[in-house]
Amino acid sequence: MTAADARARLVLSLVTEPGDPRLVELLRGTTPVDVVRALEAGRRHPGVSDAWRERFARADVLVERAREAAEAAGLRWVVPGDRDWPRGLEDLDHLDPLHGATGCPLGLWVRGEASLGELTRHAVAVVGTRSCTSYGATTASELAADLGDTGFTVLSGAAFGIDAAAHRGALAVGRPTIAVLACGADADSPRAHAALLRRIVDAGGLVVSEQPPGQVPIRARFLSRNRLIAAMTVGTVVVEAARRSGSLNTLHWADRLGRPTMAVPGPVTSAQSVGTHQAVRDGKAVLVTEHRDVLAELGLGPEAAGPGRPEGHGHESPGRRTLDALSWDRALPLQEVADRAGAAPGETAAVLAALAAEGLAVQVDGRWLLHQRADAT
Amino acid sequence: MTAADARARLVLSLVTEPGDPRLVELLRGTTPVDVVRALEAGRRHPGVSDAWRERFARADVLVERAREAAEAAGLRWVVPGDRDWPRGLEDLDHLDPLHGATGCPLGLWVRGEASLGELTRHAVAVVGTRSCTSYGATTASELAADLGDTGFTVLSGAAFGIDAAAHRGALAVGRPTIAVLACGADADSPRAHAALLRRIVDAGGLVVSEQPPGQVPIRARFLSRNRLIAAMTVGTVVVEAARRSGSLNTLHWADRLGRPTMAVPGPVTSAQSVGTHQAVRDGKAVLVTEHRDVLAELGLGPEAAGPGRPEGHGHESPGRRTLDALSWDRALPLQEVADRAGAAPGETAAVLAALAAEGLAVQVDGRWLLHQRADAT
Repeated sequence: MTAADARARLVLSLVTEPGDPRLVELLRGTTPVDVVRALEAGRRHPGVSDAWRERFARADVLVERAREAAEAAGLRWVVPGDRDWPRGLEDLDHLDPLHGATGCPLGLWVRGEASLGELTRHAVAVVGTRSCTSYGATTASELAADLGDTGFTVLSGAAFGIDAAAHRGALAVGRPTIAVLACGADADSPRAHAALLRRIVDAGGLVVSEQPPGQVPIRARFLSRNRLIAAMTVGTVVVEAARRSGSLNTLHWADRLGRPTMAVPGPVTSAQSVGTHQAVRDGKAVLVTEHRDVLAELGLGPEAAGPGRPEGHGHESPGRRTLDALSWDRALPLQEVADRAGAAPGETAAVLAALAAEGLAVQVDGRWLLHQRADAT
Repeated sequence: MTAADARARLVLSLVTEPGDPRLVELLRGTTPVDVVRALEAGRRHPGVSDAWRERFARADVLVERAREAAEAAGLRWVVPGDRDWPRGLEDLDHLDPLHGATGCPLGLWVRGEASLGELTRHAVAVVGTRSCTSYGATTASELAADLGDTGFTVLSGAAFGIDAAAHRGALAVGRPTIAVLACGADADSPRAHAALLRRIVDAGGLVVSEQPPGQVPIRARFLSRNRLIAAMTVGTVVVEAARRSGSLNTLHWADRLGRPTMAVPGPVTSAQSVGTHQAVRDGKAVLVTEHRDVLAELGLGPEAAGPGRPEGHGHESPGRRTLDALSWDRALPLQEVADRAGAAPGETAAVLAALAAEGLAVQVDGRWLLHQRADAT
């Protein structure tokens, strides 16, 4: 793609609301460059609304402002055709709007140095309710850790609760993870997750958004953001969801895209599992209890090892082995954790420190315990 | 049916192993009376094995002994055609053997005064693992209580764990429940459940078996007993089951009978839910989370009130209302329980005493708490 195309897409993304279904219609018969040229020439263009034309009058200012904010935050603008562009997003162009949004984004703002295209080559969405239980958080972390160890990149929304637990699970086993935001990719949103988002980027993961830098999150943007999580992954797993949880919206997008939809069960006494159970009962999701079930739904078979880790080749990561070595109810000395994990105490100490930073392990009187806060920064 | 038929069936049940598939073959072309006549006349009869003929030599002694034991324990012998005979058992005659058993029983020994035919007119099986969790026990009790309140009789196997919890849930709301045993109906099996079985009978329920009085339970008889639980009910719910739990065998019988099969999910971290989750994943059971889901699977629709209680007509029982008034974490004085239940303190005190006897409520320092032991007598 040319610089002109990238710039035209940027301009259009700034004078419209990303996800507006009219953009799909507009670009069906023409290119972003042609639309912008017509606007620059003051010509009417079929499919361009008056509001967009009005906003276009300020296009240069908007572009300048976005570029400055992006540079300050270290964001880059990625468009279809770039080597970095993820597969799957174009499938959205064939879907009718849901809650007022559809379509492939004009482009994506990306924070982090990794290749978005590379990281999403094998990616699974792990999402769920903000107000999760500690059971849900633990399950999401473990699932994300195991999917990470299998070679998948875990995508989620960086929200409180299940989303954060999923990101942390991937980080705990040293695997990159991608947070897709409903606001600008420069924002630390939610604010309490600033450190989490930083760790995601530092660990070789990415923070992604179709919204311009500085854009604020509103309900409609969370809903349109969900379509990107579903479209950039080969399947979506919902870990906990109350009756009308927004995470079921991501499941719905995955279903409409023809991607496998999965739900983790929980106690029937838990309001946070009502939505997942209902999805299974309604045939909207397949029940999965662990990463092997997810692999099976992705057509990788019960014996499949997944796409395989770039490094490690199917061996469990030190993070995963150390997690498995810890216990909920009995604090262990470092030496015993190392023995159980089959690793040297020095390496294990470093891994435990990393797990503690993710809130997955805790040190009590010099001994180590498995720990999962329902939601921790 | 005639007394001769009832006696011939009794004789055959004593000289064979109930559930032996050869009995289905034998009675396809003839009647129990004709078979016994042939044996009495010393004639060979097609389908009658040498072992059966040998045992038949002692038939009079066996009948006498069974009658004495039955009289002592207050058992009666019910056969097909009796007003008391439950519907559905004949469907077993069309099924191939599973673990060496199939077919409608020759007759059933029944302990208790209620009509087996009447109680099984609307009956649901609630079964599960012996080594249940307290979550499973609570869920089974609540489900049975709600199904009881809806007008269903709960059938189960009186085993430790989920079975006992299901019986107790029905008892707690003052509804009859039926225990189907793998040994003689005169036995208190398991011994620790002697009081439970007595309460079942005292509360207008029944203890039932196809095995002669005095017969001991062995693994094969548990498996053949399961077919009766599945066949006497309109659907089977498994609450907790480990990977190869015997309760999945009941589910399998229900499935083969074309009756709805249902499974309650639980935490994916619980070994006691592995079997139920697997059954859902394999399409062998539909996920249900509460009695309304069960009603829906039984074709009674989401708004259905079930068959309706003979008395009470859809109103919740005092037991159910009192259970709902109690809390897990805050002990309440009698007056507050009564207020919450919308009942007089005198009535509520009596109900609480009954709930305490079932291990569902506990009194601490004069206040009342919800209580569920994983397994209690």
